[in-house]
Formats: sequence, structure tokens, C-alpha cells
Amino acid sequence: MPGHKGMGPTASDAESRDLSSGMPASLAEKLCDGLAKRWQAETSLLGSMCAHALMPSGKLFRPILLLESAMAVGGDVEVVLPAAIGAECGHVASLVHGDIVHDDDLRRGRPSVQYKFGADNAIVAGDALLFDLFAALAECRGTGARAERIVAALEVIARCGIDLCRGQSLEAELRERMDLDLGGYLTMVKLKTAALFRGVCECGALLAGGDQAMVRALGAYAENLGCAFQIHDDLMSYTLDADAMDTSGTSDIRIGRLTLPVILACQISSSEDRAAIMEVLAGEGDPIIRRDTLVSILDHTGALVSASRVAREYAENAIAALGVLPATASRDRLRGLAQAAIDRDR
Amino acid sequence: MPGHKGMGPTASDAESRDLSSGMPASLAEKLCDGLAKRWQAETSLLGSMCAHALMPSGKLFRPILLLESAMAVGGDVEVVLPAAIGAECGHVASLVHGDIVHDDDLRRGRPSVQYKFGADNAIVAGDALLFDLFAALAECRGTGARAERIVAALEVIARCGIDLCRGQSLEAELRERMDLDLGGYLTMVKLKTAALFRGVCECGALLAGGDQAMVRALGAYAENLGCAFQIHDDLMSYTLDADAMDTSGTSDIRIGRLTLPVILACQISSSEDRAAIMEVLAGEGDPIIRRDTLVSILDHTGALVSASRVAREYAENAIAALGVLPATASRDRLRGLAQAAIDRDR
Repeated sequence: MPGHKGMGPTASDAESRDLSSGMPASLAEKLCDGLAKRWQAETSLLGSMCAHALMPSGKLFRPILLLESAMAVGGDVEVVLPAAIGAECGHVASLVHGDIVHDDDLRRGRPSVQYKFGADNAIVAGDALLFDLFAALAECRGTGARAERIVAALEVIARCGIDLCRGQSLEAELRERMDLDLGGYLTMVKLKTAALFRGVCECGALLAGGDQAMVRALGAYAENLGCAFQIHDDLMSYTLDADAMDTSGTSDIRIGRLTLPVILACQISSSEDRAAIMEVLAGEGDPIIRRDTLVSILDHTGALVSASRVAREYAENAIAALGVLPATASRDRLRGLAQAAIDRDR
Repeated sequence: MPGHKGMGPTASDAESRDLSSGMPASLAEKLCDGLAKRWQAETSLLGSMCAHALMPSGKLFRPILLLESAMAVGGDVEVVLPAAIGAECGHVASLVHGDIVHDDDLRRGRPSVQYKFGADNAIVAGDALLFDLFAALAECRGTGARAERIVAALEVIARCGIDLCRGQSLEAELRERMDLDLGGYLTMVKLKTAALFRGVCECGALLAGGDQAMVRALGAYAENLGCAFQIHDDLMSYTLDADAMDTSGTSDIRIGRLTLPVILACQISSSEDRAAIMEVLAGEGDPIIRRDTLVSILDHTGALVSASRVAREYAENAIAALGVLPATASRDRLRGLAQAAIDRDR
């Protein structure tokens, strides 16, 4: 995989060390090849946009989860490979549309689709990638998945996709009314991030022939993992050096996102600190300066430490859910992914 | 169906007379009920947007095609009802996103989702409806469709969805470079409109157990019907009285769409007329005045009559494709729909 910053034992960046967690290199390569080939032959505007959005790829966390889940139930990973590629298409679709909503110009260190091709075209590109998720799922018939299993996976992934939209929409609602309710935030995270994690793990297990208990265990693992992952993601906006981040580092400030550290800080801090937090989130002005003000409050109130503890609890619950699965290398790697989700620094 | 402007023998508006074409009223009611119930229980922002987008419904042309196709191959219509509801969700998803792209504030005589809830929220609503298309398809397992058939339908509808995006993106490309190539336009129409028509007819036939020849025939019918439908749609922007139309009546002018009458006019008209057409399409100013100028050129060059002839040819090809199907009431109604597609005035 020359030039690809994805995964496999030969990859050298921190991201891949953290998240591929030792999945066989040949499998990682097949995944990347499949993604690269998916839209590269199409020279139209749509093809260019989809190829730009997919490659070079990101962490490939969702397809890896799908593949590992299939292997963890003792299934043939070749059978589910198209669905894993589809999982990345679906995730990238949500990024392409999300970058329009949040007016983000950079994605994975290069121009976002909406910035490069315009928001109108990006809407269509996201839709195409979303359809492609389902086209890829159907391709599992050709690789040997039973039709019954594909239909079960279809139901799971479509329902999780709707949950993803529920989460995105709920996030907008909460931000609109500056709602600092912890329960509302956790529901939102479960829908916005954990639902698709659950969807891909359940899909992998279902397509690979896992029994109900295994599917349920992987679903529980993924839901907890998704919450840990999102909370850690939110934390990174405040814990990393500003220059270690791309624009998304101040994106949370720019759009006034109410994330766990902010919500916890408001619960435990003085009214003075609370007023300062609200001013930063609602305010205008240089996002880097506003971020520094906020980090200082989140730090001295102990909100960063508390939020980090919550992420760790979710990760521990994820690992515990794996207990009912047979001991396999995949189960170990899934365990490692839960750990990596809260240790990563990007 | 009190207050619903959809279909069934009791409905009185021209649209339903034209397009329901006598489908059993009980079936039409089930379809409307299913659509109305789909999102009404969800009081969130997302639920409100999806319910607003779906109801009151439009012509329900795509679900009707799906249901009639199922019946035309001798299948049980109850089995495919969820897929028919899904077909409307998918179509409405494309309208919700399309209204953002074309900045249309009105849809079916009321505020579009993007106008009422904002473009950012509308992106998420469209995504949810798109996922719901697939969730609904999966529900056909519960109504008795064979899993094998659902997977075949999944493949068809996902591929047609990608074609729909290809068509939307191609339309943007053609408009961007003011491309007046007839072949390019027809390819675009086939992708943008006819693909989903083909998708729903093939899905209906597949889910209801139709054999390959029947599925192919209904696919050919639908593809021709879709082209006839879109060309007629484009024509209506120029042939209807301005006050008989909602905002979409001048939408083609506002966004400078290159439709068949315009392309034909440019091929057959004097260079003077051609320059005037280009000025209208590229220009600024009152869209109603620009529309009147354009209508006069399209009329005296004979482009309107020519385009109408092309639409009729597609409709005739659609009807001819039905020849291999057994004689049923549904086949007759599908024939009627092809006629209605080029006779309707809305």
C-alpha cells in the first residue's frame, strides 16, 4: 500500500498503530484496494468527488470493526469484505454531509468535498456514497453470504443509519437551545456515533453466521466503544496542542458544540466559570483564543479528568461485553481497539 | 383519506385522476396510511422534518408503479407494500436534497424542508429518508417476501440510487459548461429520473416473484416511462400558464437548466435566436419576463412541438414493452400511466 496512510503492520503513523491493532496485512490491503477501486474508474464529477472523499482513507475504524466482528464469530472474512467497504462508504457519506453542515473546509488534512467541489455537489456525492453502502452490502451475495443473513444485516444497517441521523439532528436541537443536560448528550452520542459502530459490528457478525448471543455481545461492545470513542474525540479538541490539530481542532468552538467536558464543567463549576463558558461558546472572535480560555476552565474545574474517566468506563464496558465470545485473535484485537479508542491522540 | 390529495377513485383533483389510474382504493389508502404513520410518532426535529416532507403526499407515482408492477407479475401486493412506502421515502429524500441544491422554497405548494427548517437540517432529513427506503425494503421479510428476492431488489434499488446521483451530478456538469449536446441530455434524464422508475418497477416485480423476462419488460417500460415523464415535466415549465404553476415554474429559468426544448431550439434556430436563448438562461432579471421571452422562441422554432413528440415516442415505447406481460388490470393501468405521464398538466 505505498503512500496509503491506513493500516497494516507496515504502516508507520500513530493512527494505524493505534487502530489496526495487528489485523493481517493482506486483509488490510484488500480493504484499501477495494476502497480505492470503488470509484476510481468513474471520471465524471461524481466519480471524482467520491474518490476524493474515500481516498486516501482515514482510520478505517468501522470496516475494521466489521471484519474483526466477522472473524470473532468464526466466520469467513472474505464473505463480508464488500460490506466492510460499504461501511466505510456510509461513514464517509456522513462526513461529506457533516462537513457541509459544519462548514468544515478541511478533512483528513486536505480540502473537504464541499470546499473543493461546492456544497451542492457535495450533497449529491454524499447521497451516492450512502447508496453505495447498500450496493456493497448486496455484493455479499456474490461472496457467499446467505440471503437471509444479508436481509438481517440490511435491517440493522438501515436502522442504525436512521439513528445516526437522529443523533445529528438531536445535536443540532441541543445546541440550538444550549441544552446542558447530561442525559441528552449521552443519548445524542449513542445515536450519532455508537449506532453506526453497533451497526457495523452486528452486520459483520450476522453476515458471517454468528449466533444471536454473539451478535448481541458484539452490538453491546460496539455501542460502548462508540460512546468511548466519541467522548474521547470531543476531549481531544481540548487536550491536544493547537498545532497538533487540523481545523477540526477549533471546529467545536466555532460551532459551539456542547460536549461532555463542557457539560460536566457547567455542572460543577462556579457561576462565574459557567458564564465564561457560555460566553466562549456563544461568542465571536478568534477561535484559538476562545479555545484557550475554555481549556483553562475545563482544566481547573476537573471536567477534563472527569470526562476522560467516563470515556474509560465505556471502554471497560465494551471490553467486558466481549467476554461471551470464544477466545480468538480477533477478540483480542477488538479488546485492543477499545483501549486504543481512548488512548489515541488523533 | 380525508384531506389527502393523493389518489383513489374518490379523490377529485386532476393529478390523482391522471396518475392513480384506478388502482383499488383500499390499496391506495393503505399506502397513504403507511406513509402518514411512518414518522408521525416521532416528535423530534428529525421526525417533524420527515413527516413534513412525506405528507401530504405528492402524486405517489413511484410507489404506485411498484405496486402495479408486483400485481402485473401476478404477485401479492401486500408483500411489497413496505417497499412501495420505501420508494416514496427514497424519492422524497431526493426532493428534500434537490430543493437545497436548487434553492427552492416551495414544494407541493408548501414550504420546502430547507426553507422551513434550514438547509443543514434538511441535509440530515434527506439522509434519514434515504436510510428509511432501505429499512422499509427490509420490512418485506415480515410481509412474506423471500430473502433471495429482497437481496435482488436491494441490489437494483441501490444501483438505481447511484444512477440517480450520477444524473443529478451530470446535470450540474452540463449546466456548468452550457453543454447543449442532445445525447448528454438524454443520458442525464435516463440517470436522473428513469433510473429510479426502473428501480421501483423492477423491485416490485422481483419482490413479487416475477420471472426474469417480466422483470426485464417492466424495467424497459419504466425506463422509457421515466424519460417521457421527465421530458414532459421539463416541457411544462414552458407550456403552462405562469399562474398555474408554483415557484418551480420559473425554477428552470432561475437555475438555467438545459432541457430538451431548449436544446432542440438551439439546434434548429437562427443564430440570433440562439444568442437570445443563451442570454435568457445565463442572465439575471425577472424570471417571469425571461420565461416569456424563452417561450416565444421555443414556440416559433417548433421546439416545443418537437420535444413533445420525443416524449410521446418514449411513452409509446414504454407501452410496447408491456406486451410480453400477461393481460391483467395492472398491465392496463400501467399503460394508462404511460399515457397520463405525457398528458398531465402538473
